Amino acid sequence: MDAKQKKILAAFAATGARVETKARVKLKTKQDFALYYTPGVGVASMHLASKPSDARKLSVKGNSVAVISDGSAVLGLGNIGPYGALPVMEGKALIFKELAGIDAWPIVLDTHDPDEIVRVVTAIAPGWGGINLEDIKAPECFEIERRLAEVLDIPVMHDDQHGTAIVVLAGLMNAARVAKKPFKSLMVVISGAGAAGVATAKLLLAAGVSDIVVLDRAGTIHKKRVGLNGSKRELAAITNPRKVAGDLSTALSGADVFIGVSGPNIMTAAQVALMGERAIVFALSNPTPEIMPDEARKGGALVVATGRSDFPNQINNALVFPGVFRGALDKGVTKITEASKLRAAKALADLIKTPTAQKIIPDVLHKGVVPAIAAAIK
Amino acid sequence: MDAKQKKILAAFAATGARVETKARVKLKTKQDFALYYTPGVGVASMHLASKPSDARKLSVKGNSVAVISDGSAVLGLGNIGPYGALPVMEGKALIFKELAGIDAWPIVLDTHDPDEIVRVVTAIAPGWGGINLEDIKAPECFEIERRLAEVLDIPVMHDDQHGTAIVVLAGLMNAARVAKKPFKSLMVVISGAGAAGVATAKLLLAAGVSDIVVLDRAGTIHKKRVGLNGSKRELAAITNPRKVAGDLSTALSGADVFIGVSGPNIMTAAQVALMGERAIVFALSNPTPEIMPDEARKGGALVVATGRSDFPNQINNALVFPGVFRGALDKGVTKITEASKLRAAKALADLIKTPTAQKIIPDVLHKGVVPAIAAAIK
Repeated sequence: MDAKQKKILAAFAATGARVETKARVKLKTKQDFALYYTPGVGVASMHLASKPSDARKLSVKGNSVAVISDGSAVLGLGNIGPYGALPVMEGKALIFKELAGIDAWPIVLDTHDPDEIVRVVTAIAPGWGGINLEDIKAPECFEIERRLAEVLDIPVMHDDQHGTAIVVLAGLMNAARVAKKPFKSLMVVISGAGAAGVATAKLLLAAGVSDIVVLDRAGTIHKKRVGLNGSKRELAAITNPRKVAGDLSTALSGADVFIGVSGPNIMTAAQVALMGERAIVFALSNPTPEIMPDEARKGGALVVATGRSDFPNQINNALVFPGVFRGALDKGVTKITEASKLRAAKALADLIKTPTAQKIIPDVLHKGVVPAIAAAIK
Repeated sequence: MDAKQKKILAAFAATGARVETKARVKLKTKQDFALYYTPGVGVASMHLASKPSDARKLSVKGNSVAVISDGSAVLGLGNIGPYGALPVMEGKALIFKELAGIDAWPIVLDTHDPDEIVRVVTAIAPGWGGINLEDIKAPECFEIERRLAEVLDIPVMHDDQHGTAIVVLAGLMNAARVAKKPFKSLMVVISGAGAAGVATAKLLLAAGVSDIVVLDRAGTIHKKRVGLNGSKRELAAITNPRKVAGDLSTALSGADVFIGVSGPNIMTAAQVALMGERAIVFALSNPTPEIMPDEARKGGALVVATGRSDFPNQINNALVFPGVFRGALDKGVTKITEASKLRAAKALADLIKTPTAQKIIPDVLHKGVVPAIAAAIK
């Protein structure tokens, strides 16, 4: 461990946790106990037993989100288990509170079985106002999210999918303006056919982009490839209209956009040089991008974005998930629809009036972000 | 709904929830994001992936307790489901924070199946420092707690059992002094063979009381009764040495102590009059006691206690659970042993130097309670 890493761990140890609980009412007198605990609480309990829908008005359910992970795909670090996932889920709980006033708590799961995850989340759902799934690997994440959204009457969002897709779409709308390329005609290469890659491809399609090539570790995904799993077969059916078969370099030839949602250091400046003029490179793997920004620019990229806070153009889900759940909780929205996602991306892009190569997306600290996204969720 | 009940609901609606989350660190700059979210959080994640035991130092696990119920036995209100349970679990989370500085959150379960409850709680356990089970009905609660305590490496306590047993034992030690009766010779009648009744009988036995008769709805539990479930068969084997067979009045004849952990209004002043001189009556059903204090005194009771905040002598778990988990979290205690429970009861009783009929137990707001109980947990 180097000195910088030791300093980070020391900062985490200094407060133990990044979030804690806080009382909203006083417990100073026996009357307080008699009201908020027994016997008073019995009145609220009997009321909610007969009218569960009032839980949103009378309990934590009105403003709470469970941030849930099984630790199977944490950041770009892979399957590092529930304890490895815990600091990330805590970080999201912190962001939920600080940016959107939402009471979120990290829940990390000691199981990777999709059936069991669905059962567990369903079982604990009644006390929560929303479920933010996080860092669950593909393809399991697709089935888990779909089944939970079907059975639960609260919003369920796998943020690695839709948070990423929304912020990428927003950034790409503005990057296209900077590169002076018509948005719907962009030739897009997506490296990574996991949660983020699949959802991003689908949302870009929904936004009107038609030329999208997605790659996994074995190369481009196309109709003639054999041995594809369900979600990749679906990608093969709806993407890659030019039937590009080959590796990343093949796919990049003449492309306008590279979107990396795969893993660290998989791309070189020489590969960026294969792309078309005024190339757009979103290298979003965390904490280490697919290519570092200076390398991408060496290869000729005009607009470069990463997922990190310490470079310009942070394409990070933190721009999206607080506002999505703020809007859903405030309006009692129970499903995050594709129309809401498209509106959210547009609202986010519109916060930058005059995009530049160094500024295609608002800062996570921009006060207008959460209200703009929340307004888009219907 | 009467005016008083409307006022209580309005107080609950005024704040929505009784607890919320709170940030322990600032998110004011991009540097804060880079430290506590990406890329910094990756360092903590990698560290915990390789050394999960450090989660107590580096995450919410160090100071958190999940307050978990399936709503099958809420207060004395019966099976009113997860939404009915929610306000009680929130009240406990509030008490955990205000009395012991513990970050607790309510988790209510949409299942009553013991196997599923064990699976769900096991699955969500990694992020918590302790599990407070609550308001789960007997006999399922016994198996659920036993199995969870076996598989988890964090303290698990079903508070209806052990919180109640500890505070009853503490109160009874001091009540015996007030009534000038030798503690171990007390003739004790326990109404209720659910979670609290079973655990109280066992802890009183462990404390040296030998003459205990437990009743369920069908009457006294004794070796010759047929059709008893597992936990009641166990009670029949270890209690009722005088082989008392019959109803509550039969059992009360000449008894020194009545402990009600059953349900509202099941006892009359005339029945109290059947007890021995200087009778001790703990009518602990919530929110409505087995007999109201003035009625118990009419029947001749010397020491009367309830579970409520609005009468003297509140025999309430809130005296116990905050300190038990405070001690366990601070010392890394993973099992709440019988020896710890006996020490905790003694410590609680000892906080009252000179017990009187109106004061056998400390007030829940007594600042010495949590430290005294915490010190007893080893």
